[in-house]
Amino acid sequence: MFSFKRQGTFGDRDTSVANRTFHDKYVVHYDFSDTDDETAKEEFQTLISDLEEAGLQTEVRAGEDHSLLVFVRVPTELLNDEMHRSRVKDWLWGITSEHPQVGKRNQRDALQNTFEAEGVLSTYHLVNWQKEQGGAAITPGLGKWQNVKSIFPIHNGPANKELLKHLSQKMFLTKEDFDRIRDLFGAKVAFYFAYMQTYLLFLTFPAITGIFAWAFLPKYSLVYAIITLLGCTVFLEYWKIQQDDLSIRWNVRGVGSLKQNRPTYHYEKVVVDSAGRKKHLYPRWKSIVRQMAQIPFFILAVLVLGLTITAVYAMEILLSEAYQGPYQSYLEYVPTLVLAACLPYTRSFLEDFATSLANFENHRTQDYYEMSVTQKTFVLSFIVQYFPILLTAFVYVPLGGSLVPWMQTHLPTHLAEKLNTEPFEEDSNRLRNEVIALTVTGQVSDMFEEMVMPYLMHKLRGWYHQYKFWNSSHGAFQALAPDDPAEEAFLQSVRQQASLEPYNVQDDISEMVIQFGYLALFSPVWPLVSVGFFINNLIELRSDFLKICLEHQRPHPIRMDGIGPWINSLDALTWMGSICTAAIVHMFGAQGKEGTSMLERWGGVSWWSLPITIFISEHTFLLLRWAVRAVLQKVGSEQIRRERNERYAVRKRHLDNLETESKKRDALDVGLMERRKSVRMADPDLFWTKQAGEGISDVVGVKLIEALGRSRNGGLPTPTKQD
Amino acid sequence: MFSFKRQGTFGDRDTSVANRTFHDKYVVHYDFSDTDDETAKEEFQTLISDLEEAGLQTEVRAGEDHSLLVFVRVPTELLNDEMHRSRVKDWLWGITSEHPQVGKRNQRDALQNTFEAEGVLSTYHLVNWQKEQGGAAITPGLGKWQNVKSIFPIHNGPANKELLKHLSQKMFLTKEDFDRIRDLFGAKVAFYFAYMQTYLLFLTFPAITGIFAWAFLPKYSLVYAIITLLGCTVFLEYWKIQQDDLSIRWNVRGVGSLKQNRPTYHYEKVVVDSAGRKKHLYPRWKSIVRQMAQIPFFILAVLVLGLTITAVYAMEILLSEAYQGPYQSYLEYVPTLVLAACLPYTRSFLEDFATSLANFENHRTQDYYEMSVTQKTFVLSFIVQYFPILLTAFVYVPLGGSLVPWMQTHLPTHLAEKLNTEPFEEDSNRLRNEVIALTVTGQVSDMFEEMVMPYLMHKLRGWYHQYKFWNSSHGAFQALAPDDPAEEAFLQSVRQQASLEPYNVQDDISEMVIQFGYLALFSPVWPLVSVGFFINNLIELRSDFLKICLEHQRPHPIRMDGIGPWINSLDALTWMGSICTAAIVHMFGAQGKEGTSMLERWGGVSWWSLPITIFISEHTFLLLRWAVRAVLQKVGSEQIRRERNERYAVRKRHLDNLETESKKRDALDVGLMERRKSVRMADPDLFWTKQAGEGISDVVGVKLIEALGRSRNGGLPTPTKQD
Repeated sequence: MFSFKRQGTFGDRDTSVANRTFHDKYVVHYDFSDTDDETAKEEFQTLISDLEEAGLQTEVRAGEDHSLLVFVRVPTELLNDEMHRSRVKDWLWGITSEHPQVGKRNQRDALQNTFEAEGVLSTYHLVNWQKEQGGAAITPGLGKWQNVKSIFPIHNGPANKELLKHLSQKMFLTKEDFDRIRDLFGAKVAFYFAYMQTYLLFLTFPAITGIFAWAFLPKYSLVYAIITLLGCTVFLEYWKIQQDDLSIRWNVRGVGSLKQNRPTYHYEKVVVDSAGRKKHLYPRWKSIVRQMAQIPFFILAVLVLGLTITAVYAMEILLSEAYQGPYQSYLEYVPTLVLAACLPYTRSFLEDFATSLANFENHRTQDYYEMSVTQKTFVLSFIVQYFPILLTAFVYVPLGGSLVPWMQTHLPTHLAEKLNTEPFEEDSNRLRNEVIALTVTGQVSDMFEEMVMPYLMHKLRGWYHQYKFWNSSHGAFQALAPDDPAEEAFLQSVRQQASLEPYNVQDDISEMVIQFGYLALFSPVWPLVSVGFFINNLIELRSDFLKICLEHQRPHPIRMDGIGPWINSLDALTWMGSICTAAIVHMFGAQGKEGTSMLERWGGVSWWSLPITIFISEHTFLLLRWAVRAVLQKVGSEQIRRERNERYAVRKRHLDNLETESKKRDALDVGLMERRKSVRMADPDLFWTKQAGEGISDVVGVKLIEALGRSRNGGLPTPTKQD
Repeated sequence: MFSFKRQGTFGDRDTSVANRTFHDKYVVHYDFSDTDDETAKEEFQTLISDLEEAGLQTEVRAGEDHSLLVFVRVPTELLNDEMHRSRVKDWLWGITSEHPQVGKRNQRDALQNTFEAEGVLSTYHLVNWQKEQGGAAITPGLGKWQNVKSIFPIHNGPANKELLKHLSQKMFLTKEDFDRIRDLFGAKVAFYFAYMQTYLLFLTFPAITGIFAWAFLPKYSLVYAIITLLGCTVFLEYWKIQQDDLSIRWNVRGVGSLKQNRPTYHYEKVVVDSAGRKKHLYPRWKSIVRQMAQIPFFILAVLVLGLTITAVYAMEILLSEAYQGPYQSYLEYVPTLVLAACLPYTRSFLEDFATSLANFENHRTQDYYEMSVTQKTFVLSFIVQYFPILLTAFVYVPLGGSLVPWMQTHLPTHLAEKLNTEPFEEDSNRLRNEVIALTVTGQVSDMFEEMVMPYLMHKLRGWYHQYKFWNSSHGAFQALAPDDPAEEAFLQSVRQQASLEPYNVQDDISEMVIQFGYLALFSPVWPLVSVGFFINNLIELRSDFLKICLEHQRPHPIRMDGIGPWINSLDALTWMGSICTAAIVHMFGAQGKEGTSMLERWGGVSWWSLPITIFISEHTFLLLRWAVRAVLQKVGSEQIRRERNERYAVRKRHLDNLETESKKRDALDVGLMERRKSVRMADPDLFWTKQAGEGISDVVGVKLIEALGRSRNGGLPTPTKQD
């Protein structure tokens, strides 16, 4: 791996300064380059007074260009109070079952048992939350804080470095490693790494079977497809259990419900519920109706992206396989260039649309809003990534033979003249090549973008910032109010962090989900694809960590109880996989002999039986999934069992006290039996008075048996022992 | 409704005896007709001493024939202790969140707040549970208690009567009514009635749309099929919420986990878990493997029942529609008679097999065992009920034209001679007639069996028992130890109850599930079917209650948190419905014009598009179901919300105390700010000492803005107010 010895971000330079701390410096980046100085002064004064009103301590330093860095620290007592209040709230809302400690000393002791992210999160809340909740209400880019560019905690360089070193030395990460990530970046980021790890572990399975399938099984193997889908299902169900496990381990289960409202959340009325909580309500049916707007959006997205891709696709085929005119070798690349030019615009337009749609949906919390946005962009990625392959598999290969001539006849004559008039012959390997191209080259370029580029960019940016700082207007400023030499290196690092983008974990999860989709949807096309994924992810797991440290502002350690609705996307992809792989195997697998002409081959596909194959495959998958779920639910979550046992144990102790008490009471009641008898004799229900007293009903019963026995033998006494 | 004025079971005769109580008399029915008197005496003595050891009071009376009725009562203190222990256990296991009262007086007060079934259940536990659990270990028909025919609580006649009267006066039952059923017969039975009521309410919807469909829509209407399936889905999801709601209302949520082991449960080791609970473990993988044995069983059942039904079906068609020989009008009924003779044997053989399979599966609790048995018998009913219709719809009607002639050519010549040689013509109304026959006549005969018969049987049995008692060997015995005249009527009623079967709620649920299946699978065949179901269930809801009172021993008020795995059966039936109705509509609906010959019609069915129709229908259904679930989950359970609010409120009070405390503390710390400042000045991190003190960073920041602003303007002071 890389060496970070001289990376300022990792804080090495700062070790010269004794007691340099990281977790207590929170930055508000105020940029007044778009405002006149007077407004800036006023705003800044409000900023400082708002922060101080919330009980926060501030230090100001110059930022880059026309910006200021306000360092915020929470006094220990306030931080303790805030963390304690948060724990109490968790307990109130039933996120944790552990009763928080009460009383000053206990409280302080309990807070010894904390981790960095908890403190950073509380700081974030104190800066960001509304004033009613005790915060300073600094909402970057919103309302009166348009000029606050960002608020962020600073990276803990040494801790980052140590953890990265630790992670890069291990092949597979354990729960303790995720704990460490959680301690540094919070549960939300840690869940991503936990997911990555579980996924990586699962990938060993299709990778190994993939090598076998590639070496020994026929192309487009049904067996391999089924095994892979089964693997996907087991993985997903296992991950769900893992997720529950971790969310209990980190005390974040169900944490979504107690989150604060988004500042832009629009509510229609405020009610106080039966528990005395003030709730800002927006009618449920309205938000359901608003979410319906997604449906036309998705239809629009499919149409726009689908048509763009199809058009380019058709052009490419005509040019590369039928066109025989001049410049063929150059023209072949035109469609790709057209796509490269069109697609980003279209996509970014649709993404903007998706964002405004998510805003319109009026989600209560930032979490829900974020999920809504990323789910929408995921659908866009889905179309862009998988649509070309689906076109190849289900249109080009089976129907190309009739479609290409059709297209030729419908082209303007002067174009059609230049086309090949020989019967069109499909490229039998096009499907495989496309999958390889889209996955392997995609992964390699991603890796380049995420590994090599960051390193280079980081270096370059470092130089640039240094250059800019010394040679810009700041030169003059530095002369006026120079940095303290002891702080110089530190401030430079913070200035650089201020210029970075915030980290959005959803983008990274989205990438992994798309990858999973390739596996679920197209695994039989080229079984080695999973080997590539495995190697890629083995590196990505670390490089993503590195990326967070170098490329992004330190993420706010937001709490989440899992990877959210991605689970549903993964489930849906596996389900679609059972349909898609069945269709591919049916169409490509049946006559998959090399050497025979494609036309001959396609003549042999029985189209009528395709829906039946799909029906069988899908329902086999659903049955298997049901069985896997049943079994894994029986196995269940270790952590959940432990939690139940703990709760039982606590309550049991209580019961034991109770029983001791009850025994004491019994000891006092030696005369109980006697009293009972006399009580029974006086029973108002005469029925119970007949055989009161121990052993009486016994005697009566025996007499009755004798009497009845006698009647059985015709009134004579039973001839005991004689028969 | 019937008048019960003179029904002994309802206890009217006993009102002459003051203070006659019902809920405190639990009966152990000991039958020694298969044993010699000496063994009987010994066994009986053990029985009584076991009961007395467990602290129970006993009274013995003569039963019918050679049997004894042991009446058991739990002394008030023991009952209180037992009920309290049970509540504590509920709390320990997390079934209820309400802390049970501690201390003798509180305890007694809390137990005032009880209902009859709770006491009856505790009595049952004290009689039935193993000795380690504090019971008398009386397990009828098992181990040494082979001669204990049954143990049962006696019916509370007046309460039964009052509740029945109340129920029969209301059109739709409310939660309070279910509460009353629960108070009398326990949660398990009450859940059945709650399900019935919800289902009945839902049935109004397909009944109304059914009448419309019948009057205005074409036969085999796709629209009606879709609407009905959507209705089924909404109903199911709504019921799931209702079920959760009621289980919280009745404090039984998750109660399955704390149930005692079955006496025949076979375990491999005993472990003490981390909470100190002794657990009898049977390896999980073994029980999974054992449950796998169901798969061959179901295959066997499908084969055996399927072949029987198909054979009879073929015979019937040949005889009724092709056969032209002598006695045609009589021979036509032969197949039905054959089926009536064969099917019960085959089915009862398979049911016995299912029971032994369920035993083999080694379920830990009686609940699981019962569910396993009923699930298996449900599959058998499923085949017997739906298979003939499926045969008609998917084999007879579309393929009859070619199958019947084929059968004719393969019959022995002397038989074939007598067959009609004209081209076979299918009976176009057979499908509808069959659905009508199987549903309507089925419902009517069920109603007869459950309503009229019980009444007659009850009367007859009453006379018979009276006759038998006075004219049998008991005559002699009565002379020897006659019934107390004050108890005579009461004892007679109990003797009669002892001769009844125990009630199994699963059978009744199974009937309702089968009915639901008709609706989900075949609704478009005859839309009026749901009207019939509605009327039937309106009556059945009350007649089932009557049946429990008259036809069965009082059920043990077992606790359950819903209708268990039937939910899955219902879900599966709806799913299958989306496939089955699509196929029916596709095949019968497309060319459904009256008058055209069936042969012409069937020539027009496009077989190749059938799987596509099914695919579309099924996935539309799945999408709709997903949407319905999403919406209903958003709406959520009222009770769950209330429970959460309550928990919040309790915990909130605690928080408030905490806050008051913390405010007091703050008041003491007036000099906090001062101290903070001085603390900050002494901070070891020099960074934070620069601008310590309020307002300082403010001033510094303004200076910085001025400096930077100056630098923006090329080193000149900002021309304030001038631009």
